[in-house]
Amino acid sequence: MSFVRIYEVAEARAGILRRVQWEDQEMPAAVLDGIERIFGARIAPAEAVARILRDVRARGDAALHDWAERIDRTPPGALEVPAAEWRAAYDRLPEEERSALDLAAERIAAFHRKQPMTSWVDTGPDGTLGQLIRPLDRAGVYVPGGPAPLPSSLLMAAIPARVAGVRQVIACTPANARHKPGFSEKPGLWRGIHDLILAAAYVAKVDRLFALGGAQAIAALAYGTETVPRVDKIVGAGGLFVTLAKRQVFGGVGIDGFYGPTETLVIADDSADPAWAAADLLAQAEHDVLASPILLTPSRNLAEAVAAELARQLAGLSRQEIASQALANRGGIVVTADLAEAVELANAYAPEHLCLLVAEPWALVGQIRNAGGVFVGEGSFEVLGDYVAGPSHIMPTEGSARFSSPLSVADFVKRISLIAFTREAGARLSAPAAILARGEGLTAHAAAAEMRTR
Amino acid sequence: MSFVRIYEVAEARAGILRRVQWEDQEMPAAVLDGIERIFGARIAPAEAVARILRDVRARGDAALHDWAERIDRTPPGALEVPAAEWRAAYDRLPEEERSALDLAAERIAAFHRKQPMTSWVDTGPDGTLGQLIRPLDRAGVYVPGGPAPLPSSLLMAAIPARVAGVRQVIACTPANARHKPGFSEKPGLWRGIHDLILAAAYVAKVDRLFALGGAQAIAALAYGTETVPRVDKIVGAGGLFVTLAKRQVFGGVGIDGFYGPTETLVIADDSADPAWAAADLLAQAEHDVLASPILLTPSRNLAEAVAAELARQLAGLSRQEIASQALANRGGIVVTADLAEAVELANAYAPEHLCLLVAEPWALVGQIRNAGGVFVGEGSFEVLGDYVAGPSHIMPTEGSARFSSPLSVADFVKRISLIAFTREAGARLSAPAAILARGEGLTAHAAAAEMRTR
Repeated sequence: MSFVRIYEVAEARAGILRRVQWEDQEMPAAVLDGIERIFGARIAPAEAVARILRDVRARGDAALHDWAERIDRTPPGALEVPAAEWRAAYDRLPEEERSALDLAAERIAAFHRKQPMTSWVDTGPDGTLGQLIRPLDRAGVYVPGGPAPLPSSLLMAAIPARVAGVRQVIACTPANARHKPGFSEKPGLWRGIHDLILAAAYVAKVDRLFALGGAQAIAALAYGTETVPRVDKIVGAGGLFVTLAKRQVFGGVGIDGFYGPTETLVIADDSADPAWAAADLLAQAEHDVLASPILLTPSRNLAEAVAAELARQLAGLSRQEIASQALANRGGIVVTADLAEAVELANAYAPEHLCLLVAEPWALVGQIRNAGGVFVGEGSFEVLGDYVAGPSHIMPTEGSARFSSPLSVADFVKRISLIAFTREAGARLSAPAAILARGEGLTAHAAAAEMRTR
Repeated sequence: MSFVRIYEVAEARAGILRRVQWEDQEMPAAVLDGIERIFGARIAPAEAVARILRDVRARGDAALHDWAERIDRTPPGALEVPAAEWRAAYDRLPEEERSALDLAAERIAAFHRKQPMTSWVDTGPDGTLGQLIRPLDRAGVYVPGGPAPLPSSLLMAAIPARVAGVRQVIACTPANARHKPGFSEKPGLWRGIHDLILAAAYVAKVDRLFALGGAQAIAALAYGTETVPRVDKIVGAGGLFVTLAKRQVFGGVGIDGFYGPTETLVIADDSADPAWAAADLLAQAEHDVLASPILLTPSRNLAEAVAAELARQLAGLSRQEIASQALANRGGIVVTADLAEAVELANAYAPEHLCLLVAEPWALVGQIRNAGGVFVGEGSFEVLGDYVAGPSHIMPTEGSARFSSPLSVADFVKRISLIAFTREAGARLSAPAAILARGEGLTAHAAAAEMRTR
C-alpha cells in the first residue's frame, strides 16, 4: 500500500495540492532526448516548436510531410483521410461500439443544444443596443493519437462546434498509432489512425479529417497550407508540442486553452462506497503518470478503506504501472477537518473534475466556485463524463478552472456589440462623449461628437 | 490631399486590408532603442519582458519599484493609490466631467446587466445536467497611462467585472504621465496619474488601484507580490510590453486577448454625410500612427467628397501629425463594386469597429459575420461607443474578431458543467461508457463504469 499516501491538510497544501506555474514544470528527460534525436541539439521545446511553425508557414505541405516523417515516423502518404474511410471504419466496428458512439454523439449534441447562444437586443425610444451571436466560420479540432488515441475527444470538440453552427469543422489526428510502443496494432488501423477515431469523425459529421499531429498540425491549422485550410480557432488537448504550439500561434488564431495532465478530486464522507471511490481514482490515474487522482475526506476510516481498495483493484489493471506512478507521485488521500475544509481546498485547487461522493451532495454544490465539472453523487461517476453524460470532457486543468470553462458552444461563437441609436439619441449623447474625449486629449473624437449635436 | 488615397479593391486587399500575422509585425526602432537604454543590449522585446516577469516573481515589490524607475522614470513612492485620492480627484473635476463619467458608468452598467449569465439546468427523471455560472474571485484591469491616459478604459473593463459579480476588482495604471512628451502637466496629477483615471476608479467602484504600468504590472497581477494580490484574470489593452507580458503569463492566469492598434471600417453610400464620415475616420486616426481608418464605399463621388473633407478637417486637429500618418500609411478609401462587396471585405478584415453609414443599414446587419462592434446608421457614430453607448469599447483588433468578442460579463464568469444523474441513470449509462473506454484501451475507466451496472 506504500504507493498511495494519506496526508494531513498542511502537508497536502505544500505538496499534492500545490499548483506549479506552467513555466516551472520540469521537462522530462525523454522529451529532451527526443528533441536531440530530431533536431540534432538539446534545444528548448519552445524553440523546437517555433522552428516547426516557421517551417510549415514557409513550406506548407512539404514541411508537414517532413515533420510527420521525422517526428511521428509516418511513412509518406496523403494528408487528408477521405470521408469514405470514416464510414468504412464505422461499418467495420462491432455493433456495440457503433451504438455507444451514436449514443454519446446524441447526448453531447442534446446537452450543447440547450446552451444559451441567442442574440439579444434592448430596443426603446433611443434605439437599439444588443449583442449579436455569430458562429465561427471555421474551427479546427485536435485529436490526440499515438499511445492514447481518444476518439471521444473528437466527439467532445466537434459536436459542440457543429451545434454552434460553425460552417466548417476540420479535425487533425496523428497517423502514428502503430509506431508507438504499448499500443497494439489492430486490424482496421488506417495508416496508423484508429478505427474508432475514423468512426468518430463520421459520427460527429466533421467536414474534413487530416492525418496530422503535433506542432505541425497546429501550424497547418493556424496558417493554412496548400491542402489544409486555415481555421479561425483551434481547440482540443494534445501533448507538450501541441500545447506549446497553441501558445505561440494564439492571437493570429483563436485558442480554447492549454491542457495539462488530467485531474480528479473526489470529496467523500462515510456514506461513500470505498470500492467505487477507489475505482474512480484509478480511472483517473491510468491516463498518465502525471495525472492527479486525489481524495479529500473528513473520515479517516474511509481514507484507509479507499487506500486498501486502491491496492486491491490496482493489481488487476492493464495500465497498472502508469496508475501506480500517478497515485504515488501526483495523487493521494487527504484527511480534512470537515467537509467545509474539503470544499475550501477544492476551490483553491480548482480541479478539472470534482466528484461529490457524500450523503448530501447538493448541499455542497452551491459552495463550489472553481471546477471544470461537478459530479454530484454516486450516480454521476466521472467516467460517465468522459464519454456519454453530455457535457464536453475537454475541461480546464492546472487550476485554470479559476478563470476558464469546459469547452462549449460559447467557444465556437463570438458576440458582436450592436449600437443603433436614433439620430436624436446620438445627438443627446454626443455632449458627454465630447467632454470625456477632451479630458483624454482626443480632440478629433470631441469634434466628431460635437458635429452631431447640431 | 495626397495623405489619403483612394484604392481599387484589388489594391486594397493586397495593402491596407491585408492582415499581418502578429509575429511578422515590424518592431519600431524606438522600441529597440528604449530596450538598449534600459537593458544595456538590443535584446528582443519578448526577452526583455521575460526578464521583467522573472524578476518580479523572484523579488516582488522591490522589483516593481526598480522597473518603474528604470522604464517609466517614476520616482520611488507607494505602489497603492489610497481610495481617498480617487474621491478627491473626482471632487476636483469640473462638474461636466463628473457628470459625463457618471453617465458613462451608468450606461455601461445598464448594458452589461442585460447580458445573459444565468446558470441553467435540465432536470428530468434521469437527474440533472446543466451549467453553473460563477464569477471570478479576483480580476485585474490594466489601464493605459503615459501619453494617452484612457480613464474610459477603466470604466469599460471594471464595470463589466463588477456587474458579473467579481469579488475583488483591482486596477493598475502607470504613474508616468508627467514624464512623457506631448502630455501637458495638469494640476491634479497624483504622482503622474491623471485625475480622470483616479476619478474613474472611484466611479467604477474598483477595490484597489496600483500605480504600476508595463510588463511589471502584468507580472504583479499574474504572480502577486507583497503588496499586489495575484488575480485570476487580467484584462485591458496596453502597449507592446503589456501585450507581450500577457502572452507569456497566459495559462497561469486568464487573459482577455491581445490588443493591437485600433481600427475603424466605415461602409458608406451616397446617403452619408461626407463631413461626418470624415470626422469618424479622423477620430480613429488620431489614436495612433498605427491606427487604421478605412472607408469602403461603392460611390466614387462620396469617396472624393470624404477625401476632401479629411483634408479640410485635418488642418484643425491638435493631433494632426498622428492622424495624417495613420491616414497615409494604414488608412484609405476603397471604392467597391457595390455594398455587398463592401460587406464581404469587412467580413474578411474583421474590424474592431464597423460603421454602417448607408441609407438602409439594418439591411446589412444580418450579413455581418466578423466585427467587434457594429454601429448602425448616422445616430451611432463610433465615438459614442468609445465613451457612453454602453457596450465595452475593449474590442478585438487585428482580425481577432473572427474568433473573439468585445469584453463583456462573459469574460468575468466561468461555467462549471453540472452532472447529477440518479443512481439508476448512472447504471444504465455505464454500459456504453465502458464499451468506449475499452475501445480506447482505458480498462480502469471500463472497470469503474462496470462496477456501477450492478
